[in-house]
Amino acid sequence: MTYDTHGPAASPLAGHSRGGRRPTLAAVAQRAGVSLKTASRVLNQEPNVATATRERVQAAALALGFRRNAVAADLARGGASRLVGFVTGDLANPFYSALASGIERELRGRGLQLITASTDEDPERERALTEELVERRVGALVVTSTAREHPALRDELAGGLPVVLVDRPALDVEADTVVIDNRGGVRTAVSHLLARGHRRIGLVGDESRLWTFQERKEAFVATLAEAGIADPGRYVRDGAHDADRARAFVTELLSLDEPPTALVTANNKITVGALHALRDRQGSAVAERGQVALIGFDDFELADLLGVTVIGYDAAEMGRQAAALAMARAADPTRPAQLVVVPTLLVERGSGEVRPATSVPTR
Amino acid sequence: MTYDTHGPAASPLAGHSRGGRRPTLAAVAQRAGVSLKTASRVLNQEPNVATATRERVQAAALALGFRRNAVAADLARGGASRLVGFVTGDLANPFYSALASGIERELRGRGLQLITASTDEDPERERALTEELVERRVGALVVTSTAREHPALRDELAGGLPVVLVDRPALDVEADTVVIDNRGGVRTAVSHLLARGHRRIGLVGDESRLWTFQERKEAFVATLAEAGIADPGRYVRDGAHDADRARAFVTELLSLDEPPTALVTANNKITVGALHALRDRQGSAVAERGQVALIGFDDFELADLLGVTVIGYDAAEMGRQAAALAMARAADPTRPAQLVVVPTLLVERGSGEVRPATSVPTR
Repeated sequence: MTYDTHGPAASPLAGHSRGGRRPTLAAVAQRAGVSLKTASRVLNQEPNVATATRERVQAAALALGFRRNAVAADLARGGASRLVGFVTGDLANPFYSALASGIERELRGRGLQLITASTDEDPERERALTEELVERRVGALVVTSTAREHPALRDELAGGLPVVLVDRPALDVEADTVVIDNRGGVRTAVSHLLARGHRRIGLVGDESRLWTFQERKEAFVATLAEAGIADPGRYVRDGAHDADRARAFVTELLSLDEPPTALVTANNKITVGALHALRDRQGSAVAERGQVALIGFDDFELADLLGVTVIGYDAAEMGRQAAALAMARAADPTRPAQLVVVPTLLVERGSGEVRPATSVPTR
Repeated sequence: MTYDTHGPAASPLAGHSRGGRRPTLAAVAQRAGVSLKTASRVLNQEPNVATATRERVQAAALALGFRRNAVAADLARGGASRLVGFVTGDLANPFYSALASGIERELRGRGLQLITASTDEDPERERALTEELVERRVGALVVTSTAREHPALRDELAGGLPVVLVDRPALDVEADTVVIDNRGGVRTAVSHLLARGHRRIGLVGDESRLWTFQERKEAFVATLAEAGIADPGRYVRDGAHDADRARAFVTELLSLDEPPTALVTANNKITVGALHALRDRQGSAVAERGQVALIGFDDFELADLLGVTVIGYDAAEMGRQAAALAMARAADPTRPAQLVVVPTLLVERGSGEVRPATSVPTR
């Protein structure tokens, strides 16, 4: 599914003049009285532009101090800069390494190489790494952003560097973006559990400042509310940044007087933590209260052997699409920014098909 | 465990003059008639060197065209180059991402950042990525090398760039190196299985050109031979570059007329493939022939839940040590090259403690 986030007449770079310290390609085109496409062709030194037009655009660019990113132009022409940067959350998380693999596969087909740096979800580190990579003249940047504001990315985009956001959009930058259908995935999971008779369903998630978890939480609460569950946020826990925290949250939830009979875990790390908590609980608690159903967001390597039902999607394909968008923008900086939404799929393996031991009405 | 691979009087850079296209620090020191340490101090612009000595070293460097790597010198002084490069096999493998995490942790404590690039075990890609990173002025390089020869690394080391090899040594470069105790780990695993009565023990491994697998295979065969097993290579299979190939090899081994009663899998990917093959086999084969014992080299996240006995070690600590060695070399290019061997530990979780169904003598 590919959406154009703009109307057909909108400029993908128009948004960047807001806070941009650099003049945009749009401003150059406007001053020269030509289309964005033509301005781009001139500044990319492409052929077949009338001399008078060429000179008008060059004069406008000079007057405005517009500096086309030389590396991006190189990249578009298959030139010297063969490096693309990927600034991401945490490479030790298989989700990010699957993204990196997908980006790499697409780049290699084009003779390009990827370098990756991880921010550990620290906005300040993200800023510093982005700067380092730009200074090292990468030809394009793919970013899983953890920051709220992106003045540096906005400037680089305005300067002609292709920037693609993956997994999380940047609300202040009109850039090509690839995200998962987070809401659809969670709705499917919750509906699956409701259909099997669960009414007390828990959600354990990452830090609530992260856009992906916000999306997943909102869809979770909305789906329960639509099904008539009275207090849909009752079993929601956030702040589980690693598997150990998630294990503690799940243990806490399951020790409540009226514990949830089913859990949705909002990412792969949290699922691993939940599996440990469920294993800890085996024995008397299971005999008394029955198995707890579990659906995890993100597939993972051994989920099949462990019988874990998940909301899966193709992370490598997300990376591939992000790389393809970066290349398309390098070739044509005037194209409208694209939003690619990657679909999810419920993979039934047993843990999500467990029914509640006794059906307890919640209202 | 830290070993000095040289005698105390040997020069760590002496090896590099063999094929180096650049003059070495050793050559500068020799021409100026000073120690390596003094030559290094002058070229790093450190204080407390007599003016006459300083001038002699500078003249020698000029005459030989010696160019001290400016970035490494910066790094040693906490200067401008805040980037270290890690060229590794495949980031989608949690072993490499654990290494990267360990390197990153150590660097962050020093205000430095890591960028990572993966070669997918392709020597040509390793060469190209190394070049790209050096051109981008990284301050140090950590490399998991898949190549047989390393002229570029040798040149960079000679030029003053700290280079550390991790997981696999480079036989043609005298560089700081961090490896796992591969032989010790495999000996422990095989002895563990022999002690439980196994005589038909299989080994499934990666490509035999990889140094780590060579080490593991030699220790495997030697330990069986020492225990009096007649044909110790009988159940050795190599070339399992991914989990699917490993699964096929294990299925083949277990379908032999006289199948192995125990398996050692030479890395985490192969263990995952073997677990799938063992799951495929459940039912009649298990009833007839009993469980197959399994010990995997490399620990992995869900091994505890799956009850898999492994040869574990601290991969993050390996990365941390590699980064620390790079920093030590940046501070003092004349220090002898170090070899750090990281110890392994057998983690008993059940799969490696299975006894053979019937004790079948093999001679």
